[in-house]
Formats: sequence, C-alpha cells, structure tokens
Amino acid sequence: MFEIVKNGNVTSAKGFIAGATYAGIKSFAEDALDIAILASENLASVAGTFTTNKVVSPSVTLTKSRVRSGKSIGVVANSGCANACVGVQGLKDAEEMASLASKQINVPEDQMLVCSTGLIGVELPMALVRQHMGNIHLDSASGQSFSKAIMTTDTMPKEIAVSIKIGGKEVVIGGAAKGAGMIHPNMATMLAFISTDAKIEPDILTTFIKRSVRESFNMIDIDGDQSTNDTVLLFANGMSGISFEEVESPDAQVFQEALTYVCIELAKAIVRDGEGSNRLIEVLVNGATSKEDAKIAAREIASSTLVKAMVHGLDPNWGRIMMALGKSGVDFQESKVDVFISGIQVVHGGCSIPYLSDAVVSSMNSSEVKFEVGLNSGMNEATAWGCDLTEEYVTFNSAYST
Amino acid sequence: MFEIVKNGNVTSAKGFIAGATYAGIKSFAEDALDIAILASENLASVAGTFTTNKVVSPSVTLTKSRVRSGKSIGVVANSGCANACVGVQGLKDAEEMASLASKQINVPEDQMLVCSTGLIGVELPMALVRQHMGNIHLDSASGQSFSKAIMTTDTMPKEIAVSIKIGGKEVVIGGAAKGAGMIHPNMATMLAFISTDAKIEPDILTTFIKRSVRESFNMIDIDGDQSTNDTVLLFANGMSGISFEEVESPDAQVFQEALTYVCIELAKAIVRDGEGSNRLIEVLVNGATSKEDAKIAAREIASSTLVKAMVHGLDPNWGRIMMALGKSGVDFQESKVDVFISGIQVVHGGCSIPYLSDAVVSSMNSSEVKFEVGLNSGMNEATAWGCDLTEEYVTFNSAYST
Repeated sequence: MFEIVKNGNVTSAKGFIAGATYAGIKSFAEDALDIAILASENLASVAGTFTTNKVVSPSVTLTKSRVRSGKSIGVVANSGCANACVGVQGLKDAEEMASLASKQINVPEDQMLVCSTGLIGVELPMALVRQHMGNIHLDSASGQSFSKAIMTTDTMPKEIAVSIKIGGKEVVIGGAAKGAGMIHPNMATMLAFISTDAKIEPDILTTFIKRSVRESFNMIDIDGDQSTNDTVLLFANGMSGISFEEVESPDAQVFQEALTYVCIELAKAIVRDGEGSNRLIEVLVNGATSKEDAKIAAREIASSTLVKAMVHGLDPNWGRIMMALGKSGVDFQESKVDVFISGIQVVHGGCSIPYLSDAVVSSMNSSEVKFEVGLNSGMNEATAWGCDLTEEYVTFNSAYST
Repeated sequence: MFEIVKNGNVTSAKGFIAGATYAGIKSFAEDALDIAILASENLASVAGTFTTNKVVSPSVTLTKSRVRSGKSIGVVANSGCANACVGVQGLKDAEEMASLASKQINVPEDQMLVCSTGLIGVELPMALVRQHMGNIHLDSASGQSFSKAIMTTDTMPKEIAVSIKIGGKEVVIGGAAKGAGMIHPNMATMLAFISTDAKIEPDILTTFIKRSVRESFNMIDIDGDQSTNDTVLLFANGMSGISFEEVESPDAQVFQEALTYVCIELAKAIVRDGEGSNRLIEVLVNGATSKEDAKIAAREIASSTLVKAMVHGLDPNWGRIMMALGKSGVDFQESKVDVFISGIQVVHGGCSIPYLSDAVVSSMNSSEVKFEVGLNSGMNEATAWGCDLTEEYVTFNSAYST
C-alpha cells in the first residue's frame, strides 16, 4: 500500500526544509549539532500529542498552546537541555528561542513551535542560542541534519519516509525521532516530528496522529520512566495536491496505515537504540477479550524489568512472562494461556510443555526477540515493544549528569 | 512504646514453635533448609493478605481459602519452587504438603496453611517432600531455622520481635520474611509470617494486619515486578493473656504501632537485601493534599528505574525525582516543590538551588539514602522504600533459571 522512500527523512515530503547548527548546548563531538529548525514553505496544518507528566517543560507548554490554533510553519528544537524545572525563566527562554527561529526564517513568531530535550534543571544557555541561531540555513536536503541535532544519548539518527499513491499523485510522509532513556508508553524524552505534503485540516490531522501514536509510540517501553518533554508533532502542508477531508474513506485509511507504519518504525528505532540495549523485544498478545486489555498486557510484559533482564541473559524463563501478564490485571484464565518464544511454544494451557531449551536460547540470540502470548479468550490483539535490560544501561544511568 | 527483643524471631511470642529440614528442593548449600513448619501450640486466630497477581500459585489459593475460617494452627512453607503455573497438579501438591505437615505435628489437615516460593513453572518434587517432612521437629528455639528455610535469593534471614507491656503483662510480636527479586508494592515473591501471643479475634486481626501492611510491605519496591506467591500471615494465639477486642482503644493502638514497626523493619530488610542492591532508598513525601497522593508519589519515586540508577551512581540528578513525581499524577504544583537529598536541599520552589555537589555526593555514599520531597500543598505524608539498581541486579536476573 505504500513504498519506502530511499534515504527518506523529515524533509522528504514536498515543501519541507530543515537546517541545524552547533551552539555548544551539548558537549562537543565531531558532527555535533544541537539546534535545528524544521519548516514548511507555507503555513501548514499541525497536530500534536504531548507528555502526560505533570512536571512539564515550558517548551512543551508553549508548543501545546500554539498547536491549538491548528496552524504552524515549523518547529525549532534543541538537544542538551530539557528547559525543565527552571521556574518562570523557562517559558521566557522557550518564547525567545521560538522568536529567534522565526526571525531567522522570516515568519510570524507565533507560527513557530519549540521542543527541548536533555538535562533537567538547568536553564537554556540563551547567549549561545542567540549567537548561533543565525547560522541555521534551511533547505530540503538537510533532513538528516535535523535528525542528528535532536539526538541526546541516541547512538544514531532515526528517520524514515514512505510514499503512497492517491489518484495517480504521490503523497509523502517523512519523520525524525529521538529517544534513548526515559521511554515509557505515555509519551516519555522522546521527540518525533512528522511531515506530510497531504492537505489535511487540523481536526482531522489530530485524529490521524492520535490513532497512529496509540499503536506506536504509546506501545514502547525502555525503562518505565517518562520525560517532562515528550512531543509528537505532525505537519501537513498540502503541497502534494492531495487532500483528506475525513478519516474513514478508503484513501484516508491508506494514509492512516502509512502514517502508523512511519510511527511504528520510528518507535522501534527508539527502542532498538535504548540505552545499553542489545535486543528489541516484540510482545504480541492475542485472544484478548478487549483491545484495551491486549494493549495493557502487551505493555506490561514489554515493561517488566525481569522480562527485560531474561532477554539480555537469553534465559527462556517464561514464568516471568506469566508473572507480568498476571500483574497487568487484564481479563484472562491462566489455564488457557499459550506462550511462544520466537515461534517456539513453551507454555500450553498455562503449563510448561517440553521444549528444546537450547533451541529457544538459540532463537533468543538475535537482535529481535518475539514473545507471543495467546489468551484464547477473545478476538483482540496488540503489539508492544521493549528492549533488554543490560549492565550497560545501569552503568550509563548511574552517571548521566556528573 | 515497645522494646526490641534481642535475637527475636517468629517463635519469640509465647506458644509458637518451628522447625525445618533440607529436602533437596533448592540447590544444596551448607546450612541449606527448604521446608519449614511454624505452629502455635493451640488453635490461633489467623489473618492474611495475598498477591494481587492474577496468575497465582495454588499454594496461595489453598491458604487464602483456609484463612477465611479465621483459625489455624500454623503454616508449612517451602523454598526453591513456587508451585505456580503447573496446572491442576499444583493444588493437589499444596493440599498434600499441608496434609503431610499436619500429620507430622498431629493436627487436623485443614488447620495447616501452605506457602511456596521459588521458580515458576515446575512442579513441587513431592517425592522429596514426602521423604523429608518427617525430619521436621518443632521447638520454640528454632525460629531462625524457619527464617532460613524460606530464603531463596536472600543473602540473610530476616527476622525481628518486639514486646509491649499492657497492664503489666508482656505481649510479643515476632516475624520472619523473605524477599529479594520481584518485589513491588502490591505484595510482590515476598513471604512474611508474624506471630503474636495476644488474643485477637479474626476480624479484628484482619484490620490490624491490613493497616500495618499498607504502611510497610505495600510501600516497598525492588524492581516493579510482582510475584504469584506473595503472602503475609499473622497468627495470634492469646497465650500472653492479653486480648484486644477492638482496634481503636489506646492499648490496641500501641499494639498496632508495634505491629507496623515489625512489618516496616521486615519490609526494609527485604529491600536492603534486594538482588544486587547496595543502598536502601527512603522516600518521604510530605505536604500532599491527601494521604493516598503522598503514598502514590513516594512509591513512584522509590520505583523509578532512573532514580534507582542515580542512587547507585551517587549522582544527585534530582531532575529524575521531579520526573518520577510528575509521572505519578498526584496533585501538586511544580513551583511549590522542595527536594532534599539526605538532608541537603537541592530544589526550592521547583527550581534548582545552589548546593555543594560534592557534599550531596558524600551524603549519598551511605547504606541509606533519603529523599524528602515537600509538595507544600497539604498536610499528608508517606514514606516508601526502594533500593538502588546495580549492574549486579542485571547480571543476576539475566541468569536465574538456567
């Protein structure tokens, strides 16, 4: 239904440009970039989803309020500083950063959004921001610079674009994301920016992004924690000439599927790059009595510290999967549960069945480990993603700020 | 109000006896014990609280149903095997183990409770249980053998006893617990056995234990996971000659406080002995608008993976405390929050204040690290306990069953 755009990124859709610079907010490294602007060449529709943490960065507060208008040119994002827990100065700095960015590309100030990610509790070094914003020059070839500039502990940029054909015309959806630590289902420091050249009014756009986020960013877990800054923004500038006026038409559903794919791929890239992580864990729960139960159970299993540790150790200790399932509180009968580890059944009817332990260990020795949990109680399923818990994660997170 | 009994344990209260043996259920070590019986010399009142995990060991199922009568002689407990996820055989084995134990001490079968802890998904080796139950001989000096026999990955037995004076007579409360992995607020593999020589009817006893468990075992966290087997049992045999007929009298409140102290000390001993843990984290949240909010916030902070890792690394990264507080969803204003690390204030009004970083690091380099979070919004407070997250925890839990 859709094609992957080769080397695609957040400027692959028509009429989107980006640029980045190094201002000295995060520590220097070769190729270091820490402020970036993504912009549409015209005033785009915009929709977003935001962190549910009650401690929230003023960058999020400002962006949330500006997204309410449904229209925006673009966003300025910085890494290295979360602009959180800094009192009233935080909102002033967010406003000034948006203002500086809007002047740089000559658009009205209130059309510019702002996102921050990095250390909590330190103010944005505005002198550096003022000094370097002028170095940012935007073009359609700099999508990857944007992806790099939003990285914190990420080890690689996360980007993708797909295209769909509607009535012979091409619609592109591109995206960039950053993740690493503090990732948990309810939008946790995770930033994702998605751009499309479809024409979509803000209220419809909001429905599209909410549906896709539910299946993707809200189904991943790295360490059960949530950031103060998480944001997903979707811009739609209409430059493909294709418009979606409702969400239920067949064409709109093609768009929704492609958007969900982009979100899932970015979400999986975030998990795969979790701090210290070596393996992606995919948990499919099926046979649930409700979709919500399937989601809750899949997330609970993917979030369990003990499940994460057993994947790291290639230990087919399926009792931990049962424990996490039970803890989730969803509706099921223990005596009906089946569990498969990377395709090999280890539990039938809630009890262990004989299996070649070496074969299961071999199947787990992979960059992706899949757990399938059949509840055999209904027709609903959901997938969640997590990563393994390693000694490196602990070492890394024992010494982040110091 | 109460005194600590020197070398006190679960048989310190009058009329309680215990005994243990090694049956070969868990791997052999010097001093290894894996089946134990705790009994009252007369028929005692009993009350309990149990795991909320939906996957539950048949040992719990049986004990829960027998506790409903409010009367019991005692309990047989085994370590090494959780008797969970083993199908219908699990209940048969739990019944037989209780039956063998009751025959050994010559009491009616239905007066004997049963608890199991250890690996999930393997059946109890009943041949060994049958063969060795006869080796268990009970006396009042073997309380520590009981504490040792319930250990799994625990590195030391956990036991305590306190005495209170009521009308010139002494009432003793003694307890034993086991913990280590999979500890999370809602009773998670954690077993605790408490005995008292007070006379208390079952319904009053239930109120006493529920109140104390809420302040102790339900306020600890090691890794956010819950077991299928958690149980707290409280036996009261009346042999002190003191009875409590209601929970609100001044004497009963002395008893309640002493019981809560016993539960908190056992709970803290469990956390202190968390797998791979080096430091106890105590989180006090005060100034909350409700008691429930104070509890939720304290637990959320004590449970945060990133908070645990920062304690391990002696990193005063208080942004993680704010993050965990915000994630808890309780009622507070960011701009009113104060944070103290081991007595040193690092946050005032939601913002960082200047502090000597080296001094905070020094204060964290201790076996107990205390975080105090003032919400300045109300009059309620609560304390939760957690432990630091170490590389050893991961190493340990990567290779448990194999």
